[in-house]
Order: sequence, then structure tokens, then C-alpha cells
Amino acid sequence: MQTSPFLGELIGTMVLLLLGNGVVANVVLKQTKGESSGWIVITAGWAFAVTMGVFVAKAFGSVDAHLNPAVTVAFAVATNDFSHLVPYITAQLIGAFLGATLVWLHYLPHWAATPDPAAKLACFATGPAIRQPGSNLLSEAMATLVLILGLAGISSKHLGELAVGVGPYLVGILVWSVGLSLGGTTGYAMSPARDFSPRLAHALLPITGKGSSDWSYAWVPVVGSLAGATIGGLLIRWFTL
Amino acid sequence: MQTSPFLGELIGTMVLLLLGNGVVANVVLKQTKGESSGWIVITAGWAFAVTMGVFVAKAFGSVDAHLNPAVTVAFAVATNDFSHLVPYITAQLIGAFLGATLVWLHYLPHWAATPDPAAKLACFATGPAIRQPGSNLLSEAMATLVLILGLAGISSKHLGELAVGVGPYLVGILVWSVGLSLGGTTGYAMSPARDFSPRLAHALLPITGKGSSDWSYAWVPVVGSLAGATIGGLLIRWFTL
Amino acid sequence: MQTSPFLGELIGTMVLLLLGNGVVANVVLKQTKGESSGWIVITAGWAFAVTMGVFVAKAFGSVDAHLNPAVTVAFAVATNDFSHLVPYITAQLIGAFLGATLVWLHYLPHWAATPDPAAKLACFATGPAIRQPGSNLLSEAMATLVLILGLAGISSKHLGELAVGVGPYLVGILVWSVGLSLGGTTGYAMSPARDFSPRLAHALLPITGKGSSDWSYAWVPVVGSLAGATIGGLLIRWFTL
Amino acid sequence: MQTSPFLGELIGTMVLLLLGNGVVANVVLKQTKGESSGWIVITAGWAFAVTMGVFVAKAFGSVDAHLNPAVTVAFAVATNDFSHLVPYITAQLIGAFLGATLVWLHYLPHWAATPDPAAKLACFATGPAIRQPGSNLLSEAMATLVLILGLAGISSKHLGELAVGVGPYLVGILVWSVGLSLGGTTGYAMSPARDFSPRLAHALLPITGKGSSDWSYAWVPVVGSLAGATIGGLLIRWFTL
Repeated sequence: MQTSPFLGELIGTMVLLLLGNGVVANVVLKQTKGESSGWIVITAGWAFAVTMGVFVAKAFGSVDAHLNPAVTVAFAVATNDFSHLVPYITAQLIGAFLGATLVWLHYLPHWAATPDPAAKLACFATGPAIRQPGSNLLSEAMATLVLILGLAGISSKHLGELAVGVGPYLVGILVWSVGLSLGGTTGYAMSPARDFSPRLAHALLPITGKGSSDWSYAWVPVVGSLAGATIGGLLIRWFTL
Repeated sequence: MQTSPFLGELIGTMVLLLLGNGVVANVVLKQTKGESSGWIVITAGWAFAVTMGVFVAKAFGSVDAHLNPAVTVAFAVATNDFSHLVPYITAQLIGAFLGATLVWLHYLPHWAATPDPAAKLACFATGPAIRQPGSNLLSEAMATLVLILGLAGISSKHLGELAVGVGPYLVGILVWSVGLSLGGTTGYAMSPARDFSPRLAHALLPITGKGSSDWSYAWVPVVGSLAGATIGGLLIRWFTL
Repeated sequence: MQTSPFLGELIGTMVLLLLGNGVVANVVLKQTKGESSGWIVITAGWAFAVTMGVFVAKAFGSVDAHLNPAVTVAFAVATNDFSHLVPYITAQLIGAFLGATLVWLHYLPHWAATPDPAAKLACFATGPAIRQPGSNLLSEAMATLVLILGLAGISSKHLGELAVGVGPYLVGILVWSVGLSLGGTTGYAMSPARDFSPRLAHALLPITGKGSSDWSYAWVPVVGSLAGATIGGLLIRWFTL
Repeated sequence: MQTSPFLGELIGTMVLLLLGNGVVANVVLKQTKGESSGWIVITAGWAFAVTMGVFVAKAFGSVDAHLNPAVTVAFAVATNDFSHLVPYITAQLIGAFLGATLVWLHYLPHWAATPDPAAKLACFATGPAIRQPGSNLLSEAMATLVLILGLAGISSKHLGELAVGVGPYLVGILVWSVGLSLGGTTGYAMSPARDFSPRLAHALLPITGKGSSDWSYAWVPVVGSLAGATIGGLLIRWFTL
């Protein structure tokens, strides 16, 4: 069978969401081995989820390994080449949905063990610490902008050819950094695929005792991350970072 | 004396289990310096146990440094070359038994200080957070599949020749990732040797105040990890990852 | 538009302060996702803030990526070349002010949710665990001296050309190390810009329910870090480290 | 002035002890910013203390950067070249004493704030979790043996020439691993210099409210670490690891 950028983005994003939302499930669901193990576990888990999603995406054929529509948009804006937009984002949305579904399967005995519906939703989609859409939007945009500028800094141009192999690790450290520092307000979605597809999975899957999918918040991570990514892409282009 | 792949797999797996089950003992036994220090300590400890097991295995002659029958099976399936299967797995099973025995010796004063027999078993073999064999089997298979795909992604083909030296570190990060995110259900054995040999050691060693070795669960990590590894090996072969 | 060392220092220091003070805000403000997540989160956040600040500074044109007047002073003393002093430090002071302002915006809903004015000040400037100016000054000087010696050790001369690309990561590890070990007394400012500019931002910004900006302590991190940096710079020069 | 292996070992070991015992002081003394922040902080702090000690030692002229008499003994046994033994160990013992003294100075206001004399001693020398000299000796020997085998695995021969620059980081990870997994019984001295010299400093310095220096235990980390190092050195020699 053939690897391809489409398959790489799909499988890579699937692994990203399985590992990323998996660590949230481990921390917030009841009777898990990592129950209530805190922010250092959640942010480390998401960091290495990104590193491993990138490695797997590359293995399945995506040299770019964006795994995130916001990243794809940023680099499309930066290079003025929008040809990858539709296939990459399609693959990312499908992969994120599949990854979210795998988290549900992996933690299957724990949904019934967890009474709080909000905890269950947190294993799929993000939600604000304090609900103020304007500020929440700004948080998502700022976190995504830092993500894009960080990616520009880590890119092979600045990293040096010889260290390129550790690039996926450094991207994980970037996501750890943003999560530790800027994730406190909205849970750092920084990606439409990371938030929308799992929210859809939450709405569709027969999760024991689930509550609302909180669609009223769903636009914030989508619009916020795309706004931050567009600004980041323009900065990369204007300054040829 | 001569180093060899057999000796490397044996000593490497011994070091892996000494460090891996060592961190569990440090966290779950009583009156240790790391008592109750949580999931971040356990998963970091297992991660670096793998990194160091790999480095030591290489020093003692195993270029492959699998340290895990599931990994050996996956790469045998991937390459259709089963010649390493018996010697590697034999070495891994012996090494894991010796490593588990060293953990018992290292934490010798702490077995009598710990009243709970389940805590003592946890320093040897894995057990499910919620006992549902079907789901537990699926968890082990999924975690192992992600492990194998991650290894394929980290392999020199995708990493680039120049970063190969940091490969063992990245494999540790992979295991940290899987542990943080997918370890919450069954404790991520992901290896027959990691679970079976220490369980046998638990059954045979004169551990003060020990309880059941829980043999009824022993098939789950063995079958689950081999199933995940076989699927992973087939994916590597079909897609030539 | 043009990148330049000035712009790189400014944007890099801005990102450093946004991420660095951002993690403090996440841990000490109320109702955040990282509330009370402790010293490991704060020190990891500051470490990766430095790594990412350096990568971004390089992308925007600063090869040196000092991001800290104490580092600029140390290398000016070491090389007896003071030509960068004024432009770099100007850029760093402006960048740090902007970064502190962005933290205020990012965590906007959380200032009103946090009753303690001292917690709010901690998201801007450092303060001593036990107020004893002489000892606090010594702490800042010692931490900065270790920082400078660590930077000399990590420099390309000793690191080897091939690992230079991971230099910014190792600098982050250096800052993690100093924070974990020496940050317990004064909060390891180790930089005039990191402390003075955010303190000024705290004084000027309309932060809900803010208290004193504690200007009486402001000279300690400035004098202490410059003293440690000068000694470090002299050691680098005398020993040609 | 001239750098030299002697100076490098001395300054490197000084930095190692300042950062290593510094993190213990931060966690166990009262009113620090890292008070009671746990095992993950202590082990991470010691890990990066080693990484930074190695970098600084190299900058000051020690290519070997042993920083530990046990490591010097192991490599002397491994290579049958004992010429470095006396100068290196002398430098390490002096450096460790100076580093311990700097920790006392750095945390000066916190000694009076901490009532427990045992907590103060812990900022200098190690002590057993459960006092059983035979088991404690075995723990120290086993931890040191794993340290030596890990160093053999990380050495340039197995790491590959291209990744040598990240060697000091990997050595830190090795120490993190051993600390997390095997440090729970005796606090992983693994070095005569790391334990004896700070214990002497504890005995000599005018530490407010200090208690016994527990000299009855002092032989355990010395003998244990040298025993483990000798066995490790012999294994390196016999197997030419």
C-alpha cells in the first residue's frame, strides 16, 4: 500500500488526538492510574503527543506533518500557496475524529465510573476556565500565534540541517511551553481539528452519562486559532522568518 | 569476554526492569523517598528506564535493542525474518526476571514496611484499573500498536542519520508519551516480558507479606501486546514505513 | 520588512516574558487550569520560555539571542566589546514590557477572580521568599553567575558544531536547572529586564485589584544579576572559557 | 589564567553540588518557593545539576568531566590507567566541599526558618529511608553500577560521533533515571565526594540549629559507590563495552 501526505496527516492527527485527549482522560476520569495527576501530566502528555504524531505522520508519508489546520493555514499564508489547504485539513479533521473515537474506546470502562459530564466533555473538546468569549478568543489567538512563531524558529532554516532529526521533539517542547504558560485560560486548543472533530465525536458517540457538547463555545477555538495562524503566517511572509 | 545480541538483550532488559519496576517500588512502597510521588514520576521513570536499557543493550552487543518480545515480533512480522525470535525473546524473558529480582533486593527493607499486598504486586506485574478483560485487552493492544508505529517513526529512516545517536532518548519519550496518555487503564505493560517474568518472580521470591500473583490477568498483557505488535508489524510491512 | 538583531532581541524577549510570566499566572492566579500546580510547572514553563524565546529571537534576526541585559553585559565584559550594550538592552527592556502586558491581556478574566494582590504582583516581578536584601542580592548574583558559566559551557566551542541546533534547548535546561535548585530564595530573576520592565508594567497597567509594585525590592534583581554577570564575564575572559 | 583538568573537575563538581544540594534545600527547607514540591523536583534538579556540572567542567578544562570519584575509579579500572586517580579525586572532594558551602550561603535565611535538624542535614549529605546498613550498601552499589553501565552506553563509542555534543544532557537523563527508580532507599549518593565533602561542610559550617552530621552512616555511600564502580569498571574492561 502507498503512503501519502493525505494518509500521513490523517494517521498522524489520529495518533495526536489519541495521545493528547488520552492524557486528559487519564487525569480527569475516575479510577484511572493517572487520576488527578495534574497540569504537568496533561501538558507533558500533549507535548509528546505532538512529537509522536509528527514522527508517525512522517512515517506514513507527510513530510510537512502539520496535523493542525491552523498550521496548514499559517504556512499557506506564509508561502502564498494554498494548494494543500483542502486535502490536509480534510485529512486532519477525519484523523482527529478517529483519534477521539479511539480515546473513547481506550478508556471504555471509565466513562460509567465518572459521574461528572463536564469531565467527560473535557476528554474531547476544550472549554474556558472563565467563560468570556472575547478574552477566550484572544487567548486562543495569542497561543496559536506563539505556536506559529515557535514553529518558524524551530524550522530547518534556523535549526541547522544537522539537528533536523530532533525537530519533532522540539515541536513537542514548543507545545509543552505554550500549554504550561498560556493553556491556563482556555486549554490551548490552537487547532480547529483538535477541538471541532472530537466535539463532534462527543456528540455522536454513545458515551455513558454524557452531557452537553457545548456547541455554543465551539466557534471560539476555531476562529481564535485561525486568526492567530493568519497573523503568524503574515509575519513569516513579511519578515521571511 | 564477548558481547553479543543475546547478552545485550538480556542485560538491557534486566536494566529496563530494574529501573522500570524500581520507580514503581519507589512510588507505591511505604517509607521510600519517592512515596506517593505520583504518575509523573512513574511515567518519567519508565521512560528513562527504556532509554537507559537501550543504551546498555547496545553497549553489551545488541544493535537492535528491542528489550521487548512485542517489539521483536513486530519487526519480525515487518521484515518477514523470524530468525531472531527465539534467542531475543529468551534473553528478554531471562533479563526481565533478573531485573525484577534486583528490584526486590534493592528495596529489601521496604517490603515489610508496606502492608498492602496489591502494592507489592504492582512493583512486579501490571493490573487493570477497572477489571474488564475485553477492554483491558484492547487497551494493551492499542498502546502497543502506538508504540510500534512510534518506533517506526523514530527509526533512522525517518529520523535522519545525524540524529540517530539520540534515538534511544526519543524512544524513551515515546514510552513516556504512551504511559502518560494510554497507561491509565492497564498500566501499559506493552510487553510479555515486562509483565510475565516479573509476575513469575513475584510468585517465586520470598517477598515479605506478599499476596496473590493474580495469574488470572497474566494472559491479558501477553495477548494484548502481541496482537498490537502483529498489527503494527503488518502496517510497517504493507506501507513500508 | 527587515529582521534585525534589535527586532530579534525585542520579539524574543517579549515571547520569553509572555511564556515565562504566563506560567506564573497560570499557577498563582485563581480559576486557571494550572492553578496551584507547583514548582515543577513554574520552572518547566520558564525553561521552555527561554528555549522558545531564543528560537523566535533567532528567526527575527538576533543570532546572539541574549534576551537578558545580564547576558549581554557578561559577554560584553568577556569579549571587551561593549558596542551591543545599548541597542540590545533597550530592545530587551521594551520586549519585556510588551511581554508582561500580553500576560495581563492573556489572563484578563483571572485578575478579578484572584483576591490576593501579592499573587498578582508575582505574575509580573519577582519577590524574596524571606526578605533579607543582603542574602537576596547574593542569591541573585550566584544564580546569575551559574547561568553565565552554564552558557559558556553550552556555547558552540564546547558543544561541538554538530549539536549547535539543540543549543536553545540546552539553554532552557540550564534555566530549568537554576530555577529548580537556586530559585527557591528569590524566584531567580537573573535579569534586569525580566524584573524591572514587568514591574513597570504592573505599576502602569489597570490591573483589577492590584496592590503595591514593591519598588523597594526592585534594585535587588537588577544589581544582583549585573554583579553575577560581570563576575561571570570576567571568568570567561580570564580563562577564555 | 589557565584552565586544566584539575580546575575543571573542581569547578564542575562545585557547580554540581551547588545545584544538586540546592534543589534539596529548595524542597526540604521551610519558606522557600519550592517547599515540599516533591521527588520529581529533586530528581530533575539533580539530573540537570549533573548536565550543567559537566558542561562547566568541560569549559574549565576537564574533557573527562567525571565530577565523581566513583566514576574516576570505574574508568581507571576499565582502562587500567590509575594516573588520574589522585588529582581528579582531590579536585572533586574540594569542589564538592565548596559547592556545599555555597548552598549554605545561597539559602542563608532559610536555616533559621527550618526547625528540623534532619531536614538541614539532608541539604548536605544523604541518609537512608530505612536504616539497614547491609541493604543500604547494596542499594548504593547497585545504583552506582547502573550509573557506570549507563555511562558506558552513552559514551561516544555507542552514541555516534555526531551526537556527542548532547552527551552531557544524556548523562543528566541517566542520573534522573537512577534517581527516580533507585533513589528511594538511600537518596542515591553514588559518589564519595557528593556525600563526604558536604557532610564535612555540615560539620564545620555554623548552620543555625543544626544537629548531628550522622557520621555513623558516612561509610555506606563511600564504600557502596566505590564497590559498584569497581564492578562496573571491571565489566567495561572484560567486555570492552
